[in-house]
Amino acid sequence: MAPPIRILGIDPGLRKTGWGIVISEGSKLSFVACGCIESDGALPLGDRLRQLHEGIGKVIATHKPHEAAVEETFVNRDPQSALKLGQARGIALVVPSLAGLSVAEYAANLVKKTVVGVGHADKKQVQAMIRVLLPKAETSSADAADALAVAICHAQHRGMRALVAQMRAAG
Amino acid sequence: MAPPIRILGIDPGLRKTGWGIVISEGSKLSFVACGCIESDGALPLGDRLRQLHEGIGKVIATHKPHEAAVEETFVNRDPQSALKLGQARGIALVVPSLAGLSVAEYAANLVKKTVVGVGHADKKQVQAMIRVLLPKAETSSADAADALAVAICHAQHRGMRALVAQMRAAG
Repeated sequence: MAPPIRILGIDPGLRKTGWGIVISEGSKLSFVACGCIESDGALPLGDRLRQLHEGIGKVIATHKPHEAAVEETFVNRDPQSALKLGQARGIALVVPSLAGLSVAEYAANLVKKTVVGVGHADKKQVQAMIRVLLPKAETSSADAADALAVAICHAQHRGMRALVAQMRAAG
Repeated sequence: MAPPIRILGIDPGLRKTGWGIVISEGSKLSFVACGCIESDGALPLGDRLRQLHEGIGKVIATHKPHEAAVEETFVNRDPQSALKLGQARGIALVVPSLAGLSVAEYAANLVKKTVVGVGHADKKQVQAMIRVLLPKAETSSADAADALAVAICHAQHRGMRALVAQMRAAG
């Protein structure tokens, strides 16, 4: 059987970035930890991004995940909001990469489809499914629940991704 | 007279991030260095952002600037492009902050107005003015010239910013 893999899922946001760690072992999933990193809205943008950077760095140092996955948020809003979200997403993508982890991205509706069964599920449905899939998870924060959903999505799809990468490398 | 201040200007972009260092001493400006950090488009996004992160980190370690300034790009494109630009901007803002530098942001048209005299100047006009203001600068790259323009803009406005911050702190 494949060795257990620790996966870090991240749901990025400038105000609140959710994170969650699960262990995937064969078809078994187990909860390790989850939480939410907040940035102080009174600070300049660079300092707020530093708070997210340091927060994600601390999660990686503490829980030593093997791989990371970040939600590819669907952007249906104005370009200014997209720019703002992009800044937080940049941090969520770069910190695991700096730590030597591979970083996968999953579209929000694929994450929901994997976890809830439908692509248009709302945050409450995601939280409810996380409680079923990971009974030990503390999912009082919707952002932490979303991050665990991204980690679960990666657990389901990582085998297929690796296969595709191998086939591409083989030409 | 005020002590000389080394300023790092950054013009962020995912493919190419321009950087430039100037020394501001009273009303005198002098050129230190400039360049362009490129990310490899064939790599996953997390790795590309890591290349920018490490590149900016190296510039700061080598040139030890006291303050940083980043161009606040005007976003008139679609949300997807804004998200992409935001990711690179997040890195440009966070790396100086991680190094303990204050990071100012300036709107692109203020940068152009300060350097060229008009807010709608094009890249070639900015390059030409940089050659006048900083004759020693190597401005073969438009991105490096834009980054020097941001640094010059900060040199012009930082006194006023500090004053406003003091007045705010004093209530």
